Amino acid sequence: MISDPPIRPLARAPRGFQDRRAGQIRAERRILDAVAAVYESWGFEALETGAFEYADALGKFLPDADRPNEGVFALQDDDAWMALRYDLTAPLARFFAENAARLSRPFRRYAFGSVWRDEKPGPGRYREFLQCDADTVGSARPEADAEIVAMAVEGYAAAGLAPGAVLLKINNRKLLNGLLTAAGVTDPAQKLAVLRAVDKLDRLGREGVSALLGEGRRDDSGAFTTGARLEAAASQAVLAFVEAGRDSRSATLDAVAGVIGGSAEGDEGLSELASIGEALGRLGVGEDRAVFDPSVVRGLEYYTGAVFEAELAPSVLGEGGEPIRLGSIGGGGRYDDLVARFTGEPMPATGFSFGVSRLAAAIEAAGAGAAEAARGPVVVLALDGARMGDYLALAAELRAAGIAAEVYLGASGMRAQMKYADRRLAPAAIILGEDEIAAGAVTIKDLDLGRVLSGKVADNAAWRADRPGQITAPRAGWIAAVREIVDRAR
Amino acid sequence: MISDPPIRPLARAPRGFQDRRAGQIRAERRILDAVAAVYESWGFEALETGAFEYADALGKFLPDADRPNEGVFALQDDDAWMALRYDLTAPLARFFAENAARLSRPFRRYAFGSVWRDEKPGPGRYREFLQCDADTVGSARPEADAEIVAMAVEGYAAAGLAPGAVLLKINNRKLLNGLLTAAGVTDPAQKLAVLRAVDKLDRLGREGVSALLGEGRRDDSGAFTTGARLEAAASQAVLAFVEAGRDSRSATLDAVAGVIGGSAEGDEGLSELASIGEALGRLGVGEDRAVFDPSVVRGLEYYTGAVFEAELAPSVLGEGGEPIRLGSIGGGGRYDDLVARFTGEPMPATGFSFGVSRLAAAIEAAGAGAAEAARGPVVVLALDGARMGDYLALAAELRAAGIAAEVYLGASGMRAQMKYADRRLAPAAIILGEDEIAAGAVTIKDLDLGRVLSGKVADNAAWRADRPGQITAPRAGWIAAVREIVDRAR
Repeated sequence: MISDPPIRPLARAPRGFQDRRAGQIRAERRILDAVAAVYESWGFEALETGAFEYADALGKFLPDADRPNEGVFALQDDDAWMALRYDLTAPLARFFAENAARLSRPFRRYAFGSVWRDEKPGPGRYREFLQCDADTVGSARPEADAEIVAMAVEGYAAAGLAPGAVLLKINNRKLLNGLLTAAGVTDPAQKLAVLRAVDKLDRLGREGVSALLGEGRRDDSGAFTTGARLEAAASQAVLAFVEAGRDSRSATLDAVAGVIGGSAEGDEGLSELASIGEALGRLGVGEDRAVFDPSVVRGLEYYTGAVFEAELAPSVLGEGGEPIRLGSIGGGGRYDDLVARFTGEPMPATGFSFGVSRLAAAIEAAGAGAAEAARGPVVVLALDGARMGDYLALAAELRAAGIAAEVYLGASGMRAQMKYADRRLAPAAIILGEDEIAAGAVTIKDLDLGRVLSGKVADNAAWRADRPGQITAPRAGWIAAVREIVDRAR
Repeated sequence: MISDPPIRPLARAPRGFQDRRAGQIRAERRILDAVAAVYESWGFEALETGAFEYADALGKFLPDADRPNEGVFALQDDDAWMALRYDLTAPLARFFAENAARLSRPFRRYAFGSVWRDEKPGPGRYREFLQCDADTVGSARPEADAEIVAMAVEGYAAAGLAPGAVLLKINNRKLLNGLLTAAGVTDPAQKLAVLRAVDKLDRLGREGVSALLGEGRRDDSGAFTTGARLEAAASQAVLAFVEAGRDSRSATLDAVAGVIGGSAEGDEGLSELASIGEALGRLGVGEDRAVFDPSVVRGLEYYTGAVFEAELAPSVLGEGGEPIRLGSIGGGGRYDDLVARFTGEPMPATGFSFGVSRLAAAIEAAGAGAAEAARGPVVVLALDGARMGDYLALAAELRAAGIAAEVYLGASGMRAQMKYADRRLAPAAIILGEDEIAAGAVTIKDLDLGRVLSGKVADNAAWRADRPGQITAPRAGWIAAVREIVDRAR
């Protein structure tokens, strides 16, 4: 009933969207299952919200999102704009505000699912990616932040990264805010510009950040970014703060105390960090797992206090012995104002998000479980159209015994069928011909053994002559023989 | 840094989008895991594509989608339209066409994920819902269709529905097409109108369909739907065909043969159905699991041959003893032209889709595993702010022993903390006060037992006096004592 369109559509996915096959999906599911188990063991319950939120409910907290709906996929629904979620935090804030009366407090939930950002895609940068979050809403305690960090540490280990392969970096936005207040900077827009400048330290280095704290910076393309226009003294103070990270958490606290210049907000941030450090100690999170790092600010605008960022530790080396630079593989922080946007009432909250695809890449780069190719099922060859019923029954017998199996359903001959089984990485192929039927037997080809014994199957005749790794088993015992081969292939 | 917007956003999800909590998520995951295991045992490999496709790649196959982009969520990306997938079949066709050269043939893949339809939401009708599909691309064999049906039967059983609780209904579009050709109806638009009319049999009954096959039908609201304008004889033939279902597959084949009036396409459809029936027999799918039903046509336009639909069997009764009418809980069919839209070359394909949310509802309605409330973690009460570190350490000890546990992180007193543990359905609460510390012990409150013994905790004083289900265990043995309570709560 389908009439051909005059011009055939091009078979391609929109840019920035990924097709993921079995090996990658298995690696991601392993991560999601492991992290979900950790979250549940800490008392977090699953929650899933829809892909869309009203645009006003999502808010505009993405970095560099100045134009309306910039960075999000938005469309009009009747007279309101809705947009695909760009993270899992904003929908949680909406959900909590909507259901506050019937939720326990604190409310601890985890979620995983796709998020969408309408950004320029690049290598390893997609417009749709998987996140796996845990958040505690309704607790202002620094212990809630410490738990989130400890849980992230445990989650990375559960996902397959060796203990110590991931470093959690912790900071508190109140420190920088307090420092700026003490330096006389009170305009929220100017403070945000400072935050954005510091967030670029990794990419632009000290000099670039310094320029962005001052008048601005011209990049290699000649484009000029206006700076935060801090006075020299304030700019110096910010840089001193950013560089106050030391070897131990307590040494960093001391160094930070010396540069934030004394303000109520800064002192509050310092005291929160100290409590987080104490709680981390009681939770068994060592200095090699979680550090205080004043250069971490996070790009999302909604954070109000503690912020967290996870990176592969510098000690993790790639195959060539060089450190692996993947950037952030997860992050989070405290966002005490996000629920209040809806309700007008203060509601503290804190959380962490695993970037699942990045994490899968990190695990592979760290050599801790590369995405293996999936083994195929046992393939029952279909060499005689009149015998299809027998082939189907053989495959059903295998499945009933717990062995994945399929009948070859294409239209090709023996050689192509063997190639098919080979490409599927099938552990075995099953042959039921007239000889086998007459003898009450089944021929089983051990494909791994066959590959070892004979290299590639050159052609039908050679294969027939050689029959490497091939056995004929009576119908009474054939399932056991197949199982042995399948177990060996695992 | 967040400045309050002048008007607070309303905390609500866009209509037709669902928030799903732990119990529902667990029921859905159970289904997905069970169905995925079945699919893998039949040799299908996982594939996930992005949420968006270019609109021209998706095509317009939704029922009643006459206006551009009707029924889909579409937005402009540079100069092309992209749209959220409305099913998992169209993206598979795009993926196969794009990667045909490097895919094995037949290509057997399964997928699960959200699909989106921009339709009017209603009770149980969402604009985003989960599907779980398996498809075989590259096989024209009726055995491929039979496998898909057998796999669906097995999938429903694995998901938790009793054997025989689901009925698979099978038809072949070639039968109705052949009948119409034999009756002189050749215009594709008129054929489609007939299909749409038959598809409404469930809802409108024989009389309504009869009107829609003829001049048209005025509904209760007064709106008039133009009919297919068949002549009386053709209309009679269609109705006779639609009602040709009999008790057994072979009897239905005989009845259908008597009414389709002889056309090459009709005969082809008949022969395909006969082969499907034969293969189903060899796969052990009895007449009580899969029937031939000429009234099944499926709404999606892209089907070209066999079509499948799954419903709860009439024998499944609800709590009141009445049959459960949920409509289709899954369906699929053969779509031999969908890949060819891209490539111009014929590429047969067939598949099936579980509607996961509907299936979860069906399982619950059939009393085969209601979504139970999730048990919460063990809650360590936080009664003294200065002791937070000790509480954190206790919870960590429990988790290290494999027991889900959390510290209460709110700011309230004992009574609210007990209420919190109760609402979370925690199996136990842990109390570490000065007495316990002095005695080297921990107090464990068995909350289930406490509920039984004392009914609701009326107030703090009463609870203190009564202490139902409460034990004090030495630090050496407390984990074992908690484990016993947790195991009992399961």
